[in-house]
Amino acid sequence: MRDLLPEEVALRQYLTETILGVYQSYGFTQIETPCLEHISLLTGGEGGENEKMLFKVLKRGEKLIINENTLEKDLSDSGLRFDLTVPLSRYYATNREKLPKPFKAIQIGNVWRAERPQKGRFRQFVQCDIDIIGMKGVAMETELIMATSEALLQLSFQDFEVKINDRRLLEAIAAYSGFPSEEVGKAFIILDKADKIGIHKVREELAASGFEATAIQRFMEIIEKGGILTPDTLTEVLPEIQPEIINDLKEVIQAVTHFAQGRFAVRLDVTLVRGMGYYTGQIFEIGLEGFQSSIAGGGRYDKMIGKMLGSKEDVPACGFSIGFERIFMILIEKKYLPAISKDKIVFLYPETANLTSLMQQANMLRTRGKIVLTEPQKKNMRKQLDERKNQGYLFFSLYSESGTPEIRANQ
Amino acid sequence: MRDLLPEEVALRQYLTETILGVYQSYGFTQIETPCLEHISLLTGGEGGENEKMLFKVLKRGEKLIINENTLEKDLSDSGLRFDLTVPLSRYYATNREKLPKPFKAIQIGNVWRAERPQKGRFRQFVQCDIDIIGMKGVAMETELIMATSEALLQLSFQDFEVKINDRRLLEAIAAYSGFPSEEVGKAFIILDKADKIGIHKVREELAASGFEATAIQRFMEIIEKGGILTPDTLTEVLPEIQPEIINDLKEVIQAVTHFAQGRFAVRLDVTLVRGMGYYTGQIFEIGLEGFQSSIAGGGRYDKMIGKMLGSKEDVPACGFSIGFERIFMILIEKKYLPAISKDKIVFLYPETANLTSLMQQANMLRTRGKIVLTEPQKKNMRKQLDERKNQGYLFFSLYSESGTPEIRANQ
Repeated sequence: MRDLLPEEVALRQYLTETILGVYQSYGFTQIETPCLEHISLLTGGEGGENEKMLFKVLKRGEKLIINENTLEKDLSDSGLRFDLTVPLSRYYATNREKLPKPFKAIQIGNVWRAERPQKGRFRQFVQCDIDIIGMKGVAMETELIMATSEALLQLSFQDFEVKINDRRLLEAIAAYSGFPSEEVGKAFIILDKADKIGIHKVREELAASGFEATAIQRFMEIIEKGGILTPDTLTEVLPEIQPEIINDLKEVIQAVTHFAQGRFAVRLDVTLVRGMGYYTGQIFEIGLEGFQSSIAGGGRYDKMIGKMLGSKEDVPACGFSIGFERIFMILIEKKYLPAISKDKIVFLYPETANLTSLMQQANMLRTRGKIVLTEPQKKNMRKQLDERKNQGYLFFSLYSESGTPEIRANQ
Repeated sequence: MRDLLPEEVALRQYLTETILGVYQSYGFTQIETPCLEHISLLTGGEGGENEKMLFKVLKRGEKLIINENTLEKDLSDSGLRFDLTVPLSRYYATNREKLPKPFKAIQIGNVWRAERPQKGRFRQFVQCDIDIIGMKGVAMETELIMATSEALLQLSFQDFEVKINDRRLLEAIAAYSGFPSEEVGKAFIILDKADKIGIHKVREELAASGFEATAIQRFMEIIEKGGILTPDTLTEVLPEIQPEIINDLKEVIQAVTHFAQGRFAVRLDVTLVRGMGYYTGQIFEIGLEGFQSSIAGGGRYDKMIGKMLGSKEDVPACGFSIGFERIFMILIEKKYLPAISKDKIVFLYPETANLTSLMQQANMLRTRGKIVLTEPQKKNMRKQLDERKNQGYLFFSLYSESGTPEIRANQ
């Protein structure tokens, strides 16, 4: 875990404000869940691999009695959330009577995972999710993708690519290929690695995992065309596909392409899998030229909320998570500087100055909308001013015996 | 711990922005420390009573071996921070080479304490602190008090009272009274309860704790005048007091009074103690008419940073913490509504509408700076619009076949 320096927090604050502003313009509202959740929620299975990286918190209250029969589960009844999706479902189940329908939520908050320490991975990091719960049709997917793309554009990202797929389509391809239905998950886990290992290795790994050669052949014929298939050409390759799946993809891709107006790319990508088990429909990811991992990802999960409510009915839900930490690091490396909206003035005073009148002079400048940093004037004033200039103080002012300080450029 | 609903987060966001804006105008910059800190920092003694309310986190990594010899300390090497002051000292010690001098920090973040559940107390809550490290003289105290008062004024608080005291003054009073120096702490703990138990009970409790009657008498003679003493009249009662202490108090009270211009009150309060052990100089609190507990509190702690650095030299440091949760609750109870800066439009479309063109129409309104919530038009449109009106959607617009939607008042 890391400390954040003032210039880092300033950039993160700017990121947050920009993203929030865009999401709010789509009618999303921010909510917050506690960082600690009950252990049963965090080990219920919806979190997949992330559940293995859980930070558990020691029980409080009566004194812990520890002996040879003590199990880890006797020691802990809560843990730190590892994502924002699982807590959101719990939140919706708890508070749904008080929430607008459809519910459009923004969450920006810390999550914790006990990852092996490595460059660019932190054990505490910020996730930034939008989710829509209870809205009909693929307007959900469209809005999530448009809002996230708009946020990226406003942060000066260009030339990114939105890749869209559908879990139902993947399942149809697997069935058409002749993969046994209980083995489909295994095939997808291998396919999911295509980005890292390359598409040829996928074929090898499928064979090594015992899939039949003819099935692999049929599967790979479609997958290898992954980059060039469109919803229309897909129907030719896979004539038995449910028209609804194709229509949904067409509608979303068309609406987002129109919105993009050439500022970014949008395409079907039948090789896209996304790790989590809970997706039930369209899935999507945003990739950036020159970066292997995606900068945003999400999809539809119609089963999770119903499960949380103990109901057999599906509740339509769809989310998109922007890679806050990845975006932050890209911008830090680019030395991206958010626009400074206010003049920053360093106000210097002699140590003998009267406290009341020096504060009055500084406040006079503040009421004029300036940022004013007061400090005693040092012997080497030039050096002092140069240091402040590096912190963005492009103006300075000196304590004035007459009571009306002048603002000068710090050059 | 609690879930926060959209309207609660909106108010908290407004609070945060307002407070941040004021603090930034004084040249404070925001920093962030991790929520988890090493257990040795959190049990080092600086946290006082708060250390007893620590949430400890189970060790990660090698599998925990639990047997009858296992101690709680074998199970945990980190915990959730219980305040922002102890982590700040650690942060400054770690990062001081990269930080401006003097360092003026804003921290707004969650802290955790295993409090007994009761109304208005939460186990996860936000603290909002400003601290100055390494600045000379009582300009530190003055700026902290001015900035915090300005933030409260901007949040429409009025008629609050800033109470100022000095730990050195309290010690001088105790010495003058003849309390044995090793018992002074005990006397202050009793005095600290004056707000709750009343000043007469303080006298009784001092007697019950074995203090000498003549010492109690001398002590209470000054304490009972607490409300009316000024730095000047104090010198008459306590002629041997170090002039520096009195001058410091005079200067701060004068500067803040001048700044207040009658909008709030400022006074010396010799009964003010403040709980934490680490204070070394001036201490202060802001009280609000009709509320027993304070809405902000802080003081100077010149020893803590030096201790953290392993140095024998003092590092001047002073902090002020605004009671974020208390202010939030007061404003929620007042039904305080932050000004809405953008028009909110609900955009209704027939379910048969073309997705691309409906999204285009909604986005057209968004580019004009509006917040636009799209949703399928229901049969009972009036009811639908009324519900949205309650959420602040004072305008509506309908999907237009011609492509240019009109904005209408939602009345």
